[in-house]
Amino acid sequence: MNSSIIGYILGKVIMIEGFLMLLPCLVALIYRERGGLYFLITVLICLALGWFISHKKPENAIMYLKEGCLITAFSWFVLSIFGALPFYMSGEIPGFTDALFETISGFTTTGASVLTDVEALSHCSLFWRSFTHWIGGMGVLVFLLAVIPLNGGSNFNLMRAESPGPAVGKLMPRLKSTAQLLYVIYFVMTVLEILCLIICRMPVFDAFTLSFGTAGTGGFGIKNDSIASYTSLQQWIIGIFMLLFGVNFNLYYLLLFREFKRAFTMEEVRTYFSVVLFAVVTISISLWDRFAAFSDDVRTVFFQVSSIVTTTGYATTDFDKWDTYSKMILVCLMFCGGCAGSTAGGIKVSRFVIGMKTVRKELASFIHPKSVKKIQMDDKPIEHEVVRSTNVYFLTFTMTFIISMLLLSLDKEDIVTCFTAVAATLNNVGPGLAMVGPTQNYGHFSILSKYVMMFDMLAGRLELFPLLIIFHPALWKDFFAKSQKKK
Amino acid sequence: MNSSIIGYILGKVIMIEGFLMLLPCLVALIYRERGGLYFLITVLICLALGWFISHKKPENAIMYLKEGCLITAFSWFVLSIFGALPFYMSGEIPGFTDALFETISGFTTTGASVLTDVEALSHCSLFWRSFTHWIGGMGVLVFLLAVIPLNGGSNFNLMRAESPGPAVGKLMPRLKSTAQLLYVIYFVMTVLEILCLIICRMPVFDAFTLSFGTAGTGGFGIKNDSIASYTSLQQWIIGIFMLLFGVNFNLYYLLLFREFKRAFTMEEVRTYFSVVLFAVVTISISLWDRFAAFSDDVRTVFFQVSSIVTTTGYATTDFDKWDTYSKMILVCLMFCGGCAGSTAGGIKVSRFVIGMKTVRKELASFIHPKSVKKIQMDDKPIEHEVVRSTNVYFLTFTMTFIISMLLLSLDKEDIVTCFTAVAATLNNVGPGLAMVGPTQNYGHFSILSKYVMMFDMLAGRLELFPLLIIFHPALWKDFFAKSQKKK
Repeated sequence: MNSSIIGYILGKVIMIEGFLMLLPCLVALIYRERGGLYFLITVLICLALGWFISHKKPENAIMYLKEGCLITAFSWFVLSIFGALPFYMSGEIPGFTDALFETISGFTTTGASVLTDVEALSHCSLFWRSFTHWIGGMGVLVFLLAVIPLNGGSNFNLMRAESPGPAVGKLMPRLKSTAQLLYVIYFVMTVLEILCLIICRMPVFDAFTLSFGTAGTGGFGIKNDSIASYTSLQQWIIGIFMLLFGVNFNLYYLLLFREFKRAFTMEEVRTYFSVVLFAVVTISISLWDRFAAFSDDVRTVFFQVSSIVTTTGYATTDFDKWDTYSKMILVCLMFCGGCAGSTAGGIKVSRFVIGMKTVRKELASFIHPKSVKKIQMDDKPIEHEVVRSTNVYFLTFTMTFIISMLLLSLDKEDIVTCFTAVAATLNNVGPGLAMVGPTQNYGHFSILSKYVMMFDMLAGRLELFPLLIIFHPALWKDFFAKSQKKK
Repeated sequence: MNSSIIGYILGKVIMIEGFLMLLPCLVALIYRERGGLYFLITVLICLALGWFISHKKPENAIMYLKEGCLITAFSWFVLSIFGALPFYMSGEIPGFTDALFETISGFTTTGASVLTDVEALSHCSLFWRSFTHWIGGMGVLVFLLAVIPLNGGSNFNLMRAESPGPAVGKLMPRLKSTAQLLYVIYFVMTVLEILCLIICRMPVFDAFTLSFGTAGTGGFGIKNDSIASYTSLQQWIIGIFMLLFGVNFNLYYLLLFREFKRAFTMEEVRTYFSVVLFAVVTISISLWDRFAAFSDDVRTVFFQVSSIVTTTGYATTDFDKWDTYSKMILVCLMFCGGCAGSTAGGIKVSRFVIGMKTVRKELASFIHPKSVKKIQMDDKPIEHEVVRSTNVYFLTFTMTFIISMLLLSLDKEDIVTCFTAVAATLNNVGPGLAMVGPTQNYGHFSILSKYVMMFDMLAGRLELFPLLIIFHPALWKDFFAKSQKKK
């Protein structure tokens, strides 16, 4: 175990967080809020501590997959802990558990809140809360790869551990260029949304924070009724941008390089839009008589479908009051999630495509047992290893889900609440149904349940394995054996 | 496609059903019930039709897996249709859909009923209803294999399609002997239970019908309150026998041949009993204050856990009123089910054991990527193919589950009802929660939902693939292509 490189990168991560926290300080300056002081203190702590840990570059920069996973898991732990400090110190979120919950919910782009009154927060806190979505959406380690020169080709293991989806596509021959390009697309699209919203007369502060929440597919609003009080046009813009951030970023890359044919035949993206279309049409029909006008119906349903399938979690209506079919579809969409290689959470469309093809192939093998056709996607055969790991992913996801649900059920909440609370946190959605519905919050859970859900949010964002291996005894045996050898 | 062998075996199945239906005729004679007439009519129809179809032995007796699957699926269709005739003709279950639902629920050992007043049925109908559990528990094709000489070694494909579990163990070198031995064990254990119950002063009719329901892990009771009105001792006996019928029958085979060491180290069986123990202990603690006496608490909880994990579905209490944790555990047990190679439904303990080992191995591979250890069970490495097909099974199960649930949700029932209705039918349990709880029934669903659940019950009993391949276009292309070639 190369623990020096782990420490080095963790230090860098803490420093980056320090720099990023200068933005809420700036917001505090603009609005002349005293709360900015706590952010400044945290900035200083982060910079000092980060510099202390990482000022010496390690001689051995080789990372294997296990180091990649550990770095990823620990990075997200420290990010969340330091990110929660200002909330806790200022007393805006009393209780460290709650502050940590809110921050993890932010960084993992979940958007599940423990707060009953969001509007009571100061501007700088609201800004930081939404900004964590933006940071977490693309991933802080991807950012690190984009800006910091690390020797060796083993950085790929870092990216593999943090990026969503069954297989990491290398867009550019060099990993650093891929990471930079991803961030450029992410940045430009966020700016575009901010501009669109400002043009449609949204206040600048709202436009920034809501765009951060959209881009990271997070879902923290700055109003108690989430997005309900904005104009129809503004809702349409946010709805469409949510959908766009749930698309595999490879699409934008292909469009950028004018490979239109390849772009428009991407199977995952086509499935994604088909799923959204199916959901919008059938729910709209199902809720036909609830809305005064056809346009209201379609807008509300489109917004909610887009918000849930991308695991953002904004709401313009209390969908917990919808009929069973519509709620069931929404719950299914939570698990589906957006495309791989997007900022969305959930299991990812591509895994479902691979899963469905696996089932179809299995059925065919009963009819023609000797056929050895490989599963294809985008006209290319999928490696056996990808199919296998997708299957294992489903399995691991299910087991994590069941254990979490049993732990939550100790809280004596009802079944739907337990089920959707886990679904909404493990898939990084935010709101669920019943007692965690869009008009409710997560404050009423016990401390144990909150830590279970924090774990689920991180597990969901990091796609399970980087977090779960921490529980595997072999890792620690390895860790201590190597440390002792050094002595 | 060898359609002559399909027809031949279907004919035999119909004839066997005709013979088996002589038993309810006998019951009708004993109780002097006119309803026996309808059973007699059905017997005559079955014998005549069965003889007509299968009097000529086909020249070509070769069956591939697809023929095995088709025969299995069709056998269960015709079994259910002819089995439903007496209920429908006598008017005891009005409506053919309901009669079919009840019969499929019987043969698949589900035990989900559409009837509100079971006690209104005649003795012969009650007997047939419970007897379908006994027939379906071990499988009618296994019975066929045990009694009818079929040429060729390809009969294994029949057994593979009907028997539960990830891999079919051949206990004896010859398949026919295996099938016979299984039926002998099944028969002897059923007789044992009947004797125990009669000794404990249960009326003979009740002892027979309830033992059929226990042996097949079915769950049709003959009282409106299921098992609640029987004595504690009788409840204990039924509870223990349910548990025993959920054990892999290989265990009894090993015990019979005095291979005690191998018997007591069977990993699946140990896991099964551990799961039951865990569930009983934790639920008993959770429900501590609801019962007057400690012994009541343990007996009720043990009975319910045993009933649900073996997917029998008998009830001595309305567990829908239990707390969330207990209900959640019961729902998990529904999916777990009993051991492979037993009469229980559900996904089966062995699949979960393989699943958990797969996940553990995947985690280990992140730490030691170059390790190539195979997953072991009972100290033997599990074939890669078994692991793969187990993973695919989980996937197929989940997809069938989701699609069924969405179709059911069109009924405007609540989410818990939809979810547990599918869970209870696809896992062949019987009662679920809320509107399909132990004091409720399945009569209130729409026709569409009933057919969906009939499909689920069959899919669950036949372990998905034999039923699902009917939807695969390649099968029918094959079917029609071969038929045309003949001409």
